[in-house]
Amino acid sequence: MGSMLVSFVTDFFTYETTKSVVVKSWSVGIINRIVQLLIITYFVGWVFIHEKAYQVTDTGIESSVMTKVKGFGYQNNRVMDVADYVLPPQGSGVFCIMTKLIITENQFQGKCAETGRRFSCETNDNCTEHIGSILSNGVITGVCLKSSTDSKGMCEIEGWCPAENDNVKVTPMLNVSKFTIFIKNSIRFPLFNITRGNFPSTMTSEEIKKCTYHPETNPFCPIFNVGDVLNYTGQSVENLADKGGEIGINIEWKCNLDLDIEYCVPKYSFTRLDEPFAKNAVSKGYNFRFAKYFKTANGTDFRTLHKAYAIRFDVMVTGNAGKFDTIPTLITLVAAFTSVGLGAVLCDLILLNFLKGADQYKAKKFEEVSEAQIEASIAPSPGSPLSLKGGIKSSYDSGAMSLTTSDQQL
Amino acid sequence: MGSMLVSFVTDFFTYETTKSVVVKSWSVGIINRIVQLLIITYFVGWVFIHEKAYQVTDTGIESSVMTKVKGFGYQNNRVMDVADYVLPPQGSGVFCIMTKLIITENQFQGKCAETGRRFSCETNDNCTEHIGSILSNGVITGVCLKSSTDSKGMCEIEGWCPAENDNVKVTPMLNVSKFTIFIKNSIRFPLFNITRGNFPSTMTSEEIKKCTYHPETNPFCPIFNVGDVLNYTGQSVENLADKGGEIGINIEWKCNLDLDIEYCVPKYSFTRLDEPFAKNAVSKGYNFRFAKYFKTANGTDFRTLHKAYAIRFDVMVTGNAGKFDTIPTLITLVAAFTSVGLGAVLCDLILLNFLKGADQYKAKKFEEVSEAQIEASIAPSPGSPLSLKGGIKSSYDSGAMSLTTSDQQL
Amino acid sequence: MGSMLVSFVTDFFTYETTKSVVVKSWSVGIINRIVQLLIITYFVGWVFIHEKAYQVTDTGIESSVMTKVKGFGYQNNRVMDVADYVLPPQGSGVFCIMTKLIITENQFQGKCAETGRRFSCETNDNCTEHIGSILSNGVITGVCLKSSTDSKGMCEIEGWCPAENDNVKVTPMLNVSKFTIFIKNSIRFPLFNITRGNFPSTMTSEEIKKCTYHPETNPFCPIFNVGDVLNYTGQSVENLADKGGEIGINIEWKCNLDLDIEYCVPKYSFTRLDEPFAKNAVSKGYNFRFAKYFKTANGTDFRTLHKAYAIRFDVMVTGNAGKFDTIPTLITLVAAFTSVGLGAVLCDLILLNFLKGADQYKAKKFEEVSEAQIEASIAPSPGSPLSLKGGIKSSYDSGAMSLTTSDQQL
Repeated sequence: MGSMLVSFVTDFFTYETTKSVVVKSWSVGIINRIVQLLIITYFVGWVFIHEKAYQVTDTGIESSVMTKVKGFGYQNNRVMDVADYVLPPQGSGVFCIMTKLIITENQFQGKCAETGRRFSCETNDNCTEHIGSILSNGVITGVCLKSSTDSKGMCEIEGWCPAENDNVKVTPMLNVSKFTIFIKNSIRFPLFNITRGNFPSTMTSEEIKKCTYHPETNPFCPIFNVGDVLNYTGQSVENLADKGGEIGINIEWKCNLDLDIEYCVPKYSFTRLDEPFAKNAVSKGYNFRFAKYFKTANGTDFRTLHKAYAIRFDVMVTGNAGKFDTIPTLITLVAAFTSVGLGAVLCDLILLNFLKGADQYKAKKFEEVSEAQIEASIAPSPGSPLSLKGGIKSSYDSGAMSLTTSDQQL
Repeated sequence: MGSMLVSFVTDFFTYETTKSVVVKSWSVGIINRIVQLLIITYFVGWVFIHEKAYQVTDTGIESSVMTKVKGFGYQNNRVMDVADYVLPPQGSGVFCIMTKLIITENQFQGKCAETGRRFSCETNDNCTEHIGSILSNGVITGVCLKSSTDSKGMCEIEGWCPAENDNVKVTPMLNVSKFTIFIKNSIRFPLFNITRGNFPSTMTSEEIKKCTYHPETNPFCPIFNVGDVLNYTGQSVENLADKGGEIGINIEWKCNLDLDIEYCVPKYSFTRLDEPFAKNAVSKGYNFRFAKYFKTANGTDFRTLHKAYAIRFDVMVTGNAGKFDTIPTLITLVAAFTSVGLGAVLCDLILLNFLKGADQYKAKKFEEVSEAQIEASIAPSPGSPLSLKGGIKSSYDSGAMSLTTSDQQL
Repeated sequence: MGSMLVSFVTDFFTYETTKSVVVKSWSVGIINRIVQLLIITYFVGWVFIHEKAYQVTDTGIESSVMTKVKGFGYQNNRVMDVADYVLPPQGSGVFCIMTKLIITENQFQGKCAETGRRFSCETNDNCTEHIGSILSNGVITGVCLKSSTDSKGMCEIEGWCPAENDNVKVTPMLNVSKFTIFIKNSIRFPLFNITRGNFPSTMTSEEIKKCTYHPETNPFCPIFNVGDVLNYTGQSVENLADKGGEIGINIEWKCNLDLDIEYCVPKYSFTRLDEPFAKNAVSKGYNFRFAKYFKTANGTDFRTLHKAYAIRFDVMVTGNAGKFDTIPTLITLVAAFTSVGLGAVLCDLILLNFLKGADQYKAKKFEEVSEAQIEASIAPSPGSPLSLKGGIKSSYDSGAMSLTTSDQQL
């Protein structure tokens, strides 16, 4: 019992290492080292240094955006200020600057004639076929309104009257290009609990008030000139102010937290969000309708309908942060080491098939043992003091056999 | 010095390959190949083809959503159009269609009686205990208002008067089911700089205006019928229009960028967002309050309070894009090759323990060397021309020893 | 032909295993096992149990947030209710509670004097230099308005008059700290199709109405006291109500889906979002402007401008879910096994360089074969019945040679 334990412990504390064949051949040796060098270079240069495979990455960036627009424009002979043209007013990350307003004043509930050309009619039948239409300015009643003298009239609608006529020409508010947008963006990487703001804490209040963002000269200034932004996206102010549009202001945070935190800074880019729809004729631009509600002295509700053409700005925050971590490092290292080992597959192929003396190399690399030999060795062999001796002998035999059969060996 | 360098270079350009034992045994051979086949099949079929482990994935999708609702409904004997029932008006990705409005007109600041049954009172004491309540329609003053003839009254509140009474019955705007929602969604995968829109650029303006989304017949039409959407989520229009609710319109982008970009298309799905709360009785539906403000001729402010029951639509965009990349491919390949190698562990187990002649196989696989032999070999052995010869000799001995002791070998 | 096929099949169904040298040395054996133990402990303890490397993770959480504020406050001698102080009204995940309002009543379009000190003037020249300013309350006309008796005046603006004077002192609505916020958050992990709500379905309506969130005693109650929330972020109510501010309510979902789904619960945390800007003097607090529009009896538009100081709450939902999956498990397992193998590198180093008898170990581990031997063996050797015999012989020689040259071996 005790000796069994000793023997078990002795056997446990052994070290098993593979027996290797060292081939002293210039050709295979050089190929071997070149393949290893290529693999190591690839891993060090691309995987580790360029792709930073030793880092764990946090992509779940948390972000909060606050915006503030400043500037004055004219629309319908009125001065428009921020409270008039920004919607929603509370300074969120997605906001609209209304640049053209088609205003239909004093709409009361009632019945009146449509304004759209598609709703022109000669008889009531022309209008009943439009019943249920959602393209009109109100519920189509099916009645054709026309004066006794005209042959053509307009279908009657029920709803807010008079109906909006959006074919009027309104001059858009072109000095939108002189407006400024102030963006305050604070982000957090929850995995590393890192918080950053989009302008450096060394920037003084005076500096911020005076600066304007420029990609090269002033890349951290949080104040953006609308004209510049439109310019960066390659859009014309005239077209956007007239038809409306969607602009993406992208704030990208790519942080390598192995470096100093001060290098974790935002990068702004500007895109036209309706780009993928440029080829479609439908729904060019950006517009929406809203109403302001009033009451007459006697309590009747009426409203002013606004069809607003607006430039919509989407401040989109993306980013990720990387930091050294043992797990990705280990997994990549193991992959790297094993890949270096895989280089041997190529060398083995060459050594055992294409080199002069390939058969001899095979004989050195492979020792063969077959069931027949094993069976022979365990059968009691007369004249042999130790049956095991035969096993050893056959081992050498197998080496010889291996040479004769190794031609078919892979 | 020179010869040392030569010798070093010669030693450096060598190739080291493991010495292998080739076992010519049908049983182990077949097991070996089957295990290898299983492992390779798993990696090729599942890991590579199904899970696309050769791709790098961008999950940081950037998205911009623009919506536009169309349709008319009746509420409180008025025709409601988009400007009346959609909130916020600017067509964002999260918007509400108000389907039922409880309107309290002409509220002025002042003091008046509560309307909620829980604030009924007999004496002021009944009301003072409600002071500080946030469930009332205004600040509870602690006074019980009752006419001299009644025994029961209502607590007095300070605030906008008269207080809202939301127990009135209002017919919800049921033809919300005929409304349509137009969704314009443009996305971008920043890692690959791929931009896509939710309807194909080959779709003409006319096609888009006429189509209605259908999961099978028209899966890329961006116009959704509200009734259909509610249907897909299994909700009844009547219930939702009456109590309000939250509907998720999910746009899923799963793009395999190794294929043609035209296969990168959205997939819509519709869910009821308050599903997890279905079992709770609290806060069923969706409603909120807002006010419209007016001024009397003499400048006093008053308001109309709206308690709006609304169907809220959340357009949620998710997705990821995959593209072939060397790093994940390499790591998976290395894992695959190494896994194939791990199959050998199983075969070794069988070969060295369960096969007939296992001891002989062990003798072939393992060469043993012990400290005792090494010490013996480096001691000057008389009668031996080369001390190293002993080392080699003991090598054979160890082979023999291995056979005798290998029973305990793991 | 047939025999070739048989021979090919026989060769295919072989099993190749590495030939190993078993070193029976206590020192290397113990080092070997300790290194293996360390590596296994690291993988089991850290990689598997702590980092859950056997799981596939879904980070693309889908979330929908609904909020409802309750409470009453006083502002400008009026009772303010939810419809008055919450913006936007529809209960979205980002909302503002207005705590201080600077109200400029009855603004009409026209021309009037500026109010800001920086626009004081003596001559028109002082004002022409301000033309184009975006810091004024309207468009600077370039005229200096002053009474004939005063030496100092104010620049004239065109726009909404009278101009806002935001230097007035207004008492902020301090009982914002008694308001409550109800948050309904439903999330979904699209990869696993798991839907969860932020309060348990076992919670009754009555329980929810009465409870208040507390991190320890009531961590799943969805009703938050504003005062508590401000407290958790370390902010003073007085300061925030006066200057405005931004508060992040973070809902974190970390779900281990290998456990029961009931353990997948939210964790709330509260942060001050303008933290990164604490050092900058600029843009402290949070405020914005909006207007309410009115019409006089004769149809002239006028408005009431509000400069609102508000506490903005951003409900931000983050999270990820993990579930056992074969691919990450396999990759990590392979990395683990290979890492255990890498422990051999260290032992080899010790065995072959620092141990007594290192040369003998080298001789056992490495068999050498050089081009010269191979060439000699394939040259017809007279007196040898089998040319291959030479190859075998040289094999032993190489073993001897290996011992003599292995000092330079790496």
